Amino acid sequence: MLTLDKIYHASYVLKNVIRQTDMIHAPKICSDANIYLKTENLQITGSFKVRGAYYKISQLKDEEKAKGVVACSAGNHAQGVALAAQKNGIKATICLPDGAPISKVEATRSYGAEICLVPGVYDDAYQKALSLRDEKGYTLIHPFDDEYVIAGQGSIGLEIIDQLPDLDAVVVPVGGGGLISGVAFALKSLNPNIKVYGVQASGAPSMVQSLEHDEIVCLDKVATIADGIKVKEPGVNTFEYCRQYVDQIVTVTDDEVSSAILALIEQHKLIAEGAGAVAVAAVMFDKLPIKGKNVVCLVSGGNIDVTILSRVIKRGLLKSGRSDTMTIQLEDKPGQLKGVSAILADMGGNVISIHHERASEDSDITDCLLRIVMETRNREHIQQIRKALTDGGFKIVG
Amino acid sequence: MLTLDKIYHASYVLKNVIRQTDMIHAPKICSDANIYLKTENLQITGSFKVRGAYYKISQLKDEEKAKGVVACSAGNHAQGVALAAQKNGIKATICLPDGAPISKVEATRSYGAEICLVPGVYDDAYQKALSLRDEKGYTLIHPFDDEYVIAGQGSIGLEIIDQLPDLDAVVVPVGGGGLISGVAFALKSLNPNIKVYGVQASGAPSMVQSLEHDEIVCLDKVATIADGIKVKEPGVNTFEYCRQYVDQIVTVTDDEVSSAILALIEQHKLIAEGAGAVAVAAVMFDKLPIKGKNVVCLVSGGNIDVTILSRVIKRGLLKSGRSDTMTIQLEDKPGQLKGVSAILADMGGNVISIHHERASEDSDITDCLLRIVMETRNREHIQQIRKALTDGGFKIVG
Repeated sequence: MLTLDKIYHASYVLKNVIRQTDMIHAPKICSDANIYLKTENLQITGSFKVRGAYYKISQLKDEEKAKGVVACSAGNHAQGVALAAQKNGIKATICLPDGAPISKVEATRSYGAEICLVPGVYDDAYQKALSLRDEKGYTLIHPFDDEYVIAGQGSIGLEIIDQLPDLDAVVVPVGGGGLISGVAFALKSLNPNIKVYGVQASGAPSMVQSLEHDEIVCLDKVATIADGIKVKEPGVNTFEYCRQYVDQIVTVTDDEVSSAILALIEQHKLIAEGAGAVAVAAVMFDKLPIKGKNVVCLVSGGNIDVTILSRVIKRGLLKSGRSDTMTIQLEDKPGQLKGVSAILADMGGNVISIHHERASEDSDITDCLLRIVMETRNREHIQQIRKALTDGGFKIVG
Repeated sequence: MLTLDKIYHASYVLKNVIRQTDMIHAPKICSDANIYLKTENLQITGSFKVRGAYYKISQLKDEEKAKGVVACSAGNHAQGVALAAQKNGIKATICLPDGAPISKVEATRSYGAEICLVPGVYDDAYQKALSLRDEKGYTLIHPFDDEYVIAGQGSIGLEIIDQLPDLDAVVVPVGGGGLISGVAFALKSLNPNIKVYGVQASGAPSMVQSLEHDEIVCLDKVATIADGIKVKEPGVNTFEYCRQYVDQIVTVTDDEVSSAILALIEQHKLIAEGAGAVAVAAVMFDKLPIKGKNVVCLVSGGNIDVTILSRVIKRGLLKSGRSDTMTIQLEDKPGQLKGVSAILADMGGNVISIHHERASEDSDITDCLLRIVMETRNREHIQQIRKALTDGGFKIVG
């Protein structure tokens, strides 16, 4: 059974293993409330998951430790279990679907775990983990629905109240519900007045729907860039803890998450993964009743692939007017490109690429299209450039 | 005159104004030494500069405070001075060249400073700052060659030795030399055995050359992505402190800096600007005699424009084989694109863009070119894809 003592014990066990991550004041995230970031993205392995995994593994019986552990995950839990097992000196086998990103596989392997690539999807890898448990006597380390794992994550709650004793509310990402269960249990036990809010991705609202229906709901499909919380079904225990200790759970869209990732980069020099940014997104987009309050957003992890990061930044640049793509229809005669170039240079648009194409199907046979991608200062700058081109006699068609 | 007492005093004055930034263990940056990051990119305003600016301004006489301050900078110093003046309740005017990035102008304005945009380049803005000083009686806050500013930056040295008492060496970015002067003075005063290394950009090695020639050298031109340390000439004081207290200064290239920025993102979830990443670059690329040592890399700032960040990531992806651009010469007949697409899908290449073009000048009139940009796993994956296409009868021309 989960108790506050168990969470204190987890804290004690974790003390010299994990980082006590910094609490950073973030006044620009939201003007209505006083926001702080609990930076678990700066935790070793890049996410909070190592806390629960380490505490769970440290509390196994000697005969369980001798046999080793198995887990199924393509993400943060895999790295947490691998590192925790390494530090406890025991064997870990991690089952992953064979399409898992190479970077995550390699990170997990680097902590000394044995990798078991399973053809198929997550569910296939999970079945493989179960059969390894049965065949080899490994202990399965569940990513969230386990009291020791929950107690480990709960140690974050103790740190938060230590770092910001007068907090009014905490905002926590919710996937399977292990993190928020531990944090809510710790905080509500110490001070029932502290509000605990959860955030799910709108494409994977399994806990939200389960609470609404007052029974565990299993979603048919889930889709979100916040892959760390892309969970179809909450746990039996975590559902119960959420029902009992969590004040409200809201959802955020992928676009809101992208904006939060960008804001964390630009304003706080922090990389968050999608799941790590949902709490900040909920606050930025005004989903919670926190006006005038001291609020901690838990930034749970930072393991985002740089290719995805690159796309998030690109999307953010377009949205904020710092990049523009336009198509100009030119008469097919000499000097046209020069005319456009001159206007762009005068206006301070920084051209990234130009593509010049003749006789597309949807233009006159003698015309050609010029497609330009450029860096701009802001939306107003884009309008100024477009106006200058139009004033200069050029026809912008897209 | 700079004294250790003055640095202690700066520390005391700054205590409730700035953040005591975290020291983060970074074992993956370099396998030969034990690396720690002093994360001044997580400082308020996104850089260490606020320390020196605040301490300087706090120590002005009342009549100086009443008149206000002026500074010239398009970067971190501007934001540091603006925030420091705001917190001291005095007026600040910041002169910037009129081509300065809007984002930096806005950040400076957001701290309540008056912005004076000066037509021309940095030197013109500096002349304007001097004339405002003379006309209006403002105190000019020099970005580095000032004992109070240096003492303020030196407070980082005290924090470092507090956070890691058994450090052997510290690696510090060098532009004008204010930061390293303060840090070196503090550390060498407390423990002369601690090595203090500096790092400059290879495109702006003004302190390196000055030390070599044993006199202050003014570079004709400077070029580097590390714009925070793009300084043509060291200060009179900082040159002297470097000569006396710094063990060695090395240089790093823009490519090395880009790799360091990427490593900080991927391994430590931290955004560093170019100047902020040079110390990490020097360690990653083995420029310093630190084998087996406890070494602190000072990550001095994180104010990098996201458009530049986006380019740095793109470059890093290309370099590490996680993105590839190829051009395939196709016979101009139906079904060709389908053939290529099938192979790419089989091989797991994730297509980002395809451009299909007929009859380019350098191909046969009946041929056409297919230019594909795609996400890949690594260099080996790229080779496998290219081989599969070649084996499938397609001609890769670039």
